[in-house]
Amino acid sequence: MAQITCSIPKGTRDFMPVEMTRRNYIFDTIRSVFKTYCFAPIETPAMENLSTLMGKYGEEGDKLLFKILNSGNFMDGVDFTADYHRVAPRICDRGLRYDLTVPFARFVVQHRGDIVFPFRRYQMQPVWRADRPQKGRYREFYQCDADVIGSDSLLHELELVQMIDDVFRRLQVAVTVKINNRKILAGIANMIGAPDKLTDITVAIDKLDKIGLDNVKSELMERGLTADAIAKLQPVFDLSGSADEKLAQLETLFAGDETGMKGVEEMRTLFGYIASVKPGCEVDLDLTLARGLNYYTGAIFEVKAKNVSIGSICGGGRYDNLTGIFGLPGVSGVGISFGADRIYDVLAELNLFPENLEQQATLLFINFGEKEMARCIALAAQLRNEGVAVEIYPDAAKMKKQMSYADAKRIPYVAFVGESELANGTVTVKDMVSGEQKTVPAEEMEKFF
Amino acid sequence: MAQITCSIPKGTRDFMPVEMTRRNYIFDTIRSVFKTYCFAPIETPAMENLSTLMGKYGEEGDKLLFKILNSGNFMDGVDFTADYHRVAPRICDRGLRYDLTVPFARFVVQHRGDIVFPFRRYQMQPVWRADRPQKGRYREFYQCDADVIGSDSLLHELELVQMIDDVFRRLQVAVTVKINNRKILAGIANMIGAPDKLTDITVAIDKLDKIGLDNVKSELMERGLTADAIAKLQPVFDLSGSADEKLAQLETLFAGDETGMKGVEEMRTLFGYIASVKPGCEVDLDLTLARGLNYYTGAIFEVKAKNVSIGSICGGGRYDNLTGIFGLPGVSGVGISFGADRIYDVLAELNLFPENLEQQATLLFINFGEKEMARCIALAAQLRNEGVAVEIYPDAAKMKKQMSYADAKRIPYVAFVGESELANGTVTVKDMVSGEQKTVPAEEMEKFF
Repeated sequence: MAQITCSIPKGTRDFMPVEMTRRNYIFDTIRSVFKTYCFAPIETPAMENLSTLMGKYGEEGDKLLFKILNSGNFMDGVDFTADYHRVAPRICDRGLRYDLTVPFARFVVQHRGDIVFPFRRYQMQPVWRADRPQKGRYREFYQCDADVIGSDSLLHELELVQMIDDVFRRLQVAVTVKINNRKILAGIANMIGAPDKLTDITVAIDKLDKIGLDNVKSELMERGLTADAIAKLQPVFDLSGSADEKLAQLETLFAGDETGMKGVEEMRTLFGYIASVKPGCEVDLDLTLARGLNYYTGAIFEVKAKNVSIGSICGGGRYDNLTGIFGLPGVSGVGISFGADRIYDVLAELNLFPENLEQQATLLFINFGEKEMARCIALAAQLRNEGVAVEIYPDAAKMKKQMSYADAKRIPYVAFVGESELANGTVTVKDMVSGEQKTVPAEEMEKFF
Repeated sequence: MAQITCSIPKGTRDFMPVEMTRRNYIFDTIRSVFKTYCFAPIETPAMENLSTLMGKYGEEGDKLLFKILNSGNFMDGVDFTADYHRVAPRICDRGLRYDLTVPFARFVVQHRGDIVFPFRRYQMQPVWRADRPQKGRYREFYQCDADVIGSDSLLHELELVQMIDDVFRRLQVAVTVKINNRKILAGIANMIGAPDKLTDITVAIDKLDKIGLDNVKSELMERGLTADAIAKLQPVFDLSGSADEKLAQLETLFAGDETGMKGVEEMRTLFGYIASVKPGCEVDLDLTLARGLNYYTGAIFEVKAKNVSIGSICGGGRYDNLTGIFGLPGVSGVGISFGADRIYDVLAELNLFPENLEQQATLLFINFGEKEMARCIALAAQLRNEGVAVEIYPDAAKMKKQMSYADAKRIPYVAFVGESELANGTVTVKDMVSGEQKTVPAEEMEKFF
């Protein structure tokens, strides 16, 4: 048979056992925190109706949706002389999910009769985007989302911060949680007399860290803000001190602006809650944070790892009208999403994965032939029954080959049941790290582990 | 905004928390058995190159592949006057995986330099088939596969039977494991002088249970077997007794037929191994089992639940040349696949899911207002730190509403921190099942759970 080149689609990945066990360490940690905060798991199909997905992620997003060709004669009655943008939705009724948020909104509307609100759900599934692949950006990647929907209590914002704190404490990653509030951003836009420029202002402010104050000001100018308005922004850039201090200064700046004042009040309550639980991580009020502004309406979260220059590893916020797009208005929700791939990169860079994660077997029985193997089969069954992961080498291969197998798979113990062990009812166990060997009665093997 | 109808593609499913926790119970059980037998997890992308998938599942299978439309101008240079079968692969370079076996074969060939053989891998991921949906048949469903590749030792066949036994013992489902061997089937075809009719014979024999002996004989006639050949089959239908007894009878029938004798020898060895481990489940040699004949070359497995009339819930076999399709011949493998959806149906029908699986929270703190909530927040943090899953009701809603929430979510304990508890440093805990109430010092709450 001719040699066929084996490959997988660009931007997708195979995961080898060592990567899987490391990824599972991250997923398990996140999941166990989600569980102690009583979030319930759901799953949605990989494919959604294209009508559910289209128009939810902007024009650019529509292009990045993977579309699934209809089965059977997909060409029937379709005009292929039209533009390809128009033809695609005629021959594809379904697409792969692009994130977990829109399917979740669809889920809530579709199953609202069966859901107890407030609904705390988590979801850990892959999503697909036809993005240009590059370092750290894939076409298939996992999202780990937790959202509470059907309540506007700020207690949920607190809990999300606690969950972030718990996850990264367990993973031993030092992080900073940055918090902002969309209402404060709106208050700032109102304050400088440019409420219609909210997006322009936040996009420019968002770049402060990267391009510096002067460049932000030129960009604001380009975006049509007057010099007067930009001057009025100066006090915002000058804000300093603790969250409480910044909020006090904002209160003065906003004077009577209702939206801005509401934002200050929300943040004061939230930071009060946060102070009471004394989180291990740093929590900052960061007015330059403007993430996902399109649908967030209250708090906005972003998490960055200290000591590593990788973008945000977790983010989220409050949205007051997510299910509105599916005909169910007025349901407030708040959520966060952990980026498993970036967290993986952070743990790898900081060398924080626990050792021996990839170890599959605790013990390998060396195979000396049929007669000895019969005893090994019985002993292996006993040990497995106690939850010990053991393997028997499948053939009576040369000792060297069997030992290299144990080495290559980093199996910590090897057991020999040869002629004398068979006669004496014993097993010789070798510690592969120390090299130490010990002969024990077969029935005492379980105690060994 | 107009009401939009929310739905998901035909043949796909949303999973609510109760279904998720039940499904996870099944997945976790299977996974923990895979682990004690030292199978290592891998994952492959949802999408494979269409060239990897096409031609691997027969002509019918090719039609059932979900194909992904190419991004950008997929129409460029494509002749849309051709037949749609020819157009589809021109506008789709990728497809969703149809099973886990072909991607695994591709994985082994692609990563052969990084794999230690024999390679024991498990994989639990969804697969997609554009099949006509019907009861119990979905377009997206999970497969849970374990395979050992790179060894022809029959020890692996034994281990797979032990794993089946362990999984269903843990799930408390009584099952029968049916085993056959492709070489025995070939021996039978040789014996009756119709080696070229192997497929016809096994397809017909496979129906014995359903249509009875007479109908099987007419079908064999229709498929071109002579009356003489069919008469020679009679002793096979007459086989009876234990596996050993059947094998002894077959040995006589096969006389010198090499393939048939090899099959008998393999089964004798395997049933000898199996007898030595005394499995809890019934294990039968079933000569009418012909599953997946296309690529199996040795043992064939199928598992049926007793007391439930549902098809096979697990199956597998040995294949000597799976990676040959990708240019790597001569790598023998053996594996099994658990059908999570059918196992779910079996557990549901026999009422075997553990109780309270869907319980997310152990305790709900009733919310009496800001002041009391502050204490609850601190207590909740302590309990969560100990791994107890607790919730705080997010608003100081009416008591009735808060209690119905606890009821609807089947939360077993409710905690009250009201004015007097706040003053005395206590918490009143109510057992929602017994109705019993107890006031305990706040610092003793942890002991309570």
